[in-house]
Amino acid sequence: MSTAEQPPGAALRSREHTREKLIDAAFEVFAEVGLNAASVEQITERAGFTRGAFYSNFDSKVELFFAIADDKYTRASEGLQSGVDAILAEALPAGHPITADALETIVTRVLGLTVVDSKLALFESEFEALALRDRDIATRYAGHLREVVAGLAGLLEGALARIGVRFLLPAEQATRLLITAYTAAMKTHLLSGGGDQPSVADLADVAALALVLTERMPER
Amino acid sequence: MSTAEQPPGAALRSREHTREKLIDAAFEVFAEVGLNAASVEQITERAGFTRGAFYSNFDSKVELFFAIADDKYTRASEGLQSGVDAILAEALPAGHPITADALETIVTRVLGLTVVDSKLALFESEFEALALRDRDIATRYAGHLREVVAGLAGLLEGALARIGVRFLLPAEQATRLLITAYTAAMKTHLLSGGGDQPSVADLADVAALALVLTERMPER
Repeated sequence: MSTAEQPPGAALRSREHTREKLIDAAFEVFAEVGLNAASVEQITERAGFTRGAFYSNFDSKVELFFAIADDKYTRASEGLQSGVDAILAEALPAGHPITADALETIVTRVLGLTVVDSKLALFESEFEALALRDRDIATRYAGHLREVVAGLAGLLEGALARIGVRFLLPAEQATRLLITAYTAAMKTHLLSGGGDQPSVADLADVAALALVLTERMPER
Repeated sequence: MSTAEQPPGAALRSREHTREKLIDAAFEVFAEVGLNAASVEQITERAGFTRGAFYSNFDSKVELFFAIADDKYTRASEGLQSGVDAILAEALPAGHPITADALETIVTRVLGLTVVDSKLALFESEFEALALRDRDIATRYAGHLREVVAGLAGLLEGALARIGVRFLLPAEQATRLLITAYTAAMKTHLLSGGGDQPSVADLADVAALALVLTERMPER
């Protein structure tokens, strides 16, 4: 009835809006009480919807876990791409081969884009523990991680090529190692009571790894 | 009464035995139901002791978490040291500088010492999530991780020096990166349904990282 009166696309946008609000509310509830303890009722109540709204968007709580993981990855990836674009546009040495110092500066600046999200770290730790206990979730979770690596590998390889640098290892392998080091550094930062913005020292392992994993391309 | 009749040292050994049985039982119970859900009763029942035996060995469940982490680290470290000693005794090139191929073989053989412990991965994931939620546990957990890194860095640096190889980065930094890559590889192996023994392919990222992080020492 009321949907019949909406302009074309409005129903779809409203549905998308509901889905986003459920994702945001669930992320907060999960951070507060953990994935297992969080109920569909708590999540829908926080978002201001009914159980019906939940089940018209997600088949189960597990579907919601994956929707959150996808949402967080998409936002992080878009933020990283635009940040890297801005840094390279400014730092790119015009026509000259990049120096080791310039590369180090760029790596430090890219890592400076980082914002720590303790709720996200917690979500990932618990999601991982859940996947380790459930074969079906594990398979899907592994697939999600492969997509994240492939996406970031493309982004990083493209950015390096623009400054005449390449990975010493296959791009996906190097990216997997960088993500792993980055995740560990964030956890160490959080465990030591760090705030939203990690320091250069917090990310020293990742910066050192990035430099060990790359080399300047031979000049043509 | 009966303790008065025991030979000197027996009471201490019996206490140590009780402690070990509690640690083993707790590790099993934690793997089955998770750290939060596991009760002191479940643990003491599994070990065949009373609550009194628990509290004469551990002040709390959290003390037990740290005792388990220390126990697992000590065993893994001793196993690694004796495994590395055996591999180097056999592979050590007598008087000749080590070749890149020989180094790769040694790295592959050392990684072949690995046995996957899905219960340990689960324990660590949950312990980490717990630490991320609790400031005091976080501080102690971070200290535990630093000790693990320092211990393994000494072991690895010593082993490398014996074959004329050194890290390109400070030993603790290189070791932290290797542990991180190893932990991630184990989780990927477990998430993909792998068994007790990871394949060479499962550990490819760690092997590649080990080679990128090292160089032959200049000849004297």
